[in-house]
Amino acid sequence: MSKDLTKRSENYSQWYNDLVLKADLAENSAVRGCMVIKPYGYSIWEMMQAALDKRFKETGHSNAYFPLFIPKSFFTKEASHVQGFAKECAVVTHYRLKNAEDGSGIIVDEDAKLEEELIVRPTSETIIWHTYRGWIQSYRDLPILVNQWANVVRWEMRTRLFLRTAEFLWQEGHTAHATADEAIAETEQMLNVYAEFAEKYMAIPVIKGIKTANERFAGAIETYCIEAMMQDGKALQAGTSHFLGQNFAKAFDVKFTGKDGAQDYVWATSWGVSTRLMGALIMTHSDDQGLVLPPKLAPIQVVIVPIYKGEEQLAQINDIAFNLKATLQNKGISVKYDNRDTQRPGFKFAEYELKGVPVRIAIGGRDLENGTLEIARRDTKEKETVSQVGIEERIEKLLIEIQETLYQKALLLQTNMTHSANSYDEFKSILETKGGFVYAHWDGTTETELKIKEETKATIRCIPLDNKKEDGKCIYSGKMSTQRVLFAKSY
Amino acid sequence: MSKDLTKRSENYSQWYNDLVLKADLAENSAVRGCMVIKPYGYSIWEMMQAALDKRFKETGHSNAYFPLFIPKSFFTKEASHVQGFAKECAVVTHYRLKNAEDGSGIIVDEDAKLEEELIVRPTSETIIWHTYRGWIQSYRDLPILVNQWANVVRWEMRTRLFLRTAEFLWQEGHTAHATADEAIAETEQMLNVYAEFAEKYMAIPVIKGIKTANERFAGAIETYCIEAMMQDGKALQAGTSHFLGQNFAKAFDVKFTGKDGAQDYVWATSWGVSTRLMGALIMTHSDDQGLVLPPKLAPIQVVIVPIYKGEEQLAQINDIAFNLKATLQNKGISVKYDNRDTQRPGFKFAEYELKGVPVRIAIGGRDLENGTLEIARRDTKEKETVSQVGIEERIEKLLIEIQETLYQKALLLQTNMTHSANSYDEFKSILETKGGFVYAHWDGTTETELKIKEETKATIRCIPLDNKKEDGKCIYSGKMSTQRVLFAKSY
Repeated sequence: MSKDLTKRSENYSQWYNDLVLKADLAENSAVRGCMVIKPYGYSIWEMMQAALDKRFKETGHSNAYFPLFIPKSFFTKEASHVQGFAKECAVVTHYRLKNAEDGSGIIVDEDAKLEEELIVRPTSETIIWHTYRGWIQSYRDLPILVNQWANVVRWEMRTRLFLRTAEFLWQEGHTAHATADEAIAETEQMLNVYAEFAEKYMAIPVIKGIKTANERFAGAIETYCIEAMMQDGKALQAGTSHFLGQNFAKAFDVKFTGKDGAQDYVWATSWGVSTRLMGALIMTHSDDQGLVLPPKLAPIQVVIVPIYKGEEQLAQINDIAFNLKATLQNKGISVKYDNRDTQRPGFKFAEYELKGVPVRIAIGGRDLENGTLEIARRDTKEKETVSQVGIEERIEKLLIEIQETLYQKALLLQTNMTHSANSYDEFKSILETKGGFVYAHWDGTTETELKIKEETKATIRCIPLDNKKEDGKCIYSGKMSTQRVLFAKSY
Repeated sequence: MSKDLTKRSENYSQWYNDLVLKADLAENSAVRGCMVIKPYGYSIWEMMQAALDKRFKETGHSNAYFPLFIPKSFFTKEASHVQGFAKECAVVTHYRLKNAEDGSGIIVDEDAKLEEELIVRPTSETIIWHTYRGWIQSYRDLPILVNQWANVVRWEMRTRLFLRTAEFLWQEGHTAHATADEAIAETEQMLNVYAEFAEKYMAIPVIKGIKTANERFAGAIETYCIEAMMQDGKALQAGTSHFLGQNFAKAFDVKFTGKDGAQDYVWATSWGVSTRLMGALIMTHSDDQGLVLPPKLAPIQVVIVPIYKGEEQLAQINDIAFNLKATLQNKGISVKYDNRDTQRPGFKFAEYELKGVPVRIAIGGRDLENGTLEIARRDTKEKETVSQVGIEERIEKLLIEIQETLYQKALLLQTNMTHSANSYDEFKSILETKGGFVYAHWDGTTETELKIKEETKATIRCIPLDNKKEDGKCIYSGKMSTQRVLFAKSY
């Protein structure tokens, strides 16, 4: 199986596409740019959802659901939002089909033209703030802490499975607050929720920062983000959290009466992560043999494969394996015992390697004699023959160790892929030869940012939150700068 | 609060609408026919999802995700399906908006017209069977047991919150099998999953049956359903499970090679329940004071309200309440302690009554002296002052008892609302005076079925699975009949 996977060193992009298809994660559909998320891929997404949803609820949020469609006029109400989102989108213009009179099939019924076109939501700020207008009168109605799990559509021209698709799944939090400070605290809290999730569950180290004006969410005052580094030296934005100020409250006339009786516009945030995280997960850890999954997001954490000759030996192995499976499951570990007789062990080994199962246990004839079994780690490919006694504790520890090892490995990669440039030549040379993150001085203007992007394809990923101040000169314009910002080519 | 709720006896339909709005379950949105599901309503839906999803997985199914959009031509491939689903639907015709040249706002960009229109999925058989074609070659690829949680759109002209909306949330299972028998067994299994869920979680007794040809799902060989009886004597279809035969496999050319090497078309099922279940839940149990929720689907099972004079008394009650809350939560019971000082106890009582919280505990000054507290049941409105000692076990038992009481009450209603008619006059008289289910003989023709529907608005809800055979004469045509079928007016 794995022999069909393109090597990363040969063609990283092809390797990614091969892997997504062969590991049964997703595939392209009959509809341009829309993907089918296959059961195995979806089960990983479900684990991400569960972990995130739990944290959202622990931080006081509730889920709700808002309409898929947004009236076209809503987009024009927030001046910058319309530029960002109401362009490449799916437009519903009619609400009926009919049989063609010439019998050629079904056609759009022109009598069923909508008075106002509906846009399939690319993001829901507008319809939600229209709704919040009815929910908020006084400070007693605040804060509103709501999240939505939903599908959204952005008509992307060049699509790639998980990374950039016309339709994708995401969650979008939309909160309303009485003060700017409270809204900013919420924005930062959710950024931290995302960063913790990336690091503790996905085993991906991230840089927390704020976006430049040019890269900001359309309609936001400030966009916070987490940025991750992939194995090929390109960055990936893994989540964003926006402080929206009073922009949407003003656009949709949402005011509240404060404790002092005075009226003011409501303060807003929004924040989201999407199925794009699947792309980040795949690209961070996987190798030329296939997917590598951190145990906390692995639908199958342990697979047991019997290696046997004859029914009698299989029966003996079955006894041990079913026992072990039950014991591990009692510890909350997800286990699959694959005793299919239609496939050989070698085939199964390759399959679970391709699918990224963190731990493989093999039990063979000699193990029956010796009271042993073989443990193989997916991440390091180390194998070890160990006693069946105490195996549960060993597996439990091993899963924790694998999770930590993957994080440390990704952190090392990030560190090795992080450079500093003190001149534009050095900057370009790093991007061409090594890729990765490049810290460099920038004069703070959009003009310079766009020029650098045009000439090098690198963008400012963020101004890191933990940045130290340092006087220097912009690598492009030579103007004064007080801090380095983080550049990279990106997905 | 509850005084604003219309009484059921005055106007059942208005009562329902009032309740959905006032209990914060859902509201109409700016988009015709599309609803906003509010956090409290959505949390009930999440509990339904969790229980159903668990059962789907226990019965071997996995979740996946398929595109929101379906190419128009897909609908024409299955002859009867197109008649049922490709008419009143949302049609995407363009993929871009642009600024109007006259500066009047944004308009559809006519240069961005799709070659083929896309339909927002009303149900996903077509796109899924198109996809399955790539997944299935041999009997080894079968069965495919997949479910999808998704939003769907049907352009309904007359909408009502939860019961009939243009966009709604649902799950749709789509399975593929090597034999007809296996597919039929799956269809029946999922019907039973739905029936058990309705009875054990929603506390709603249901009649399992099959639909007549006229009421069958467009494209199905056989449609199984569960039918519930509401308090106003109208039936509600609460779930359907379809045996699709080889219809979709033939339409999308999905064949497999059997063990014997012969090729055959794949056998299919599909099955679904939707946010319509919220309507059934509300209408089955609720009363003139508001929502009544079965404990198994109540986001808050127990609310504790302090009744106090002064800070010192509140502090003492807080001690007891926080302790009790923690103890109950340890038993897996969801508890809210509402010690807000901005609202009086009476206001809180009315609020939790309106929201259907199954058990209310009040703790007052006298309870502090006596070591007691007051328990009130939402369903029967019985109150009881009991000792604080052993309260956890009492609450635990009480929740089980309430769940059972609600089911028995609904069963009694269903029994009382089930009649038999031996003539058309009797049939019409029952429908006019009592409503409910009416068992009557029918000649088995669509013609008679439609005539009865036209004249009485009653439809054949189903031919019950446990029907006993009985010779008789059709109430309409007088022709011979071998069994009674179940008629009712319905939602």
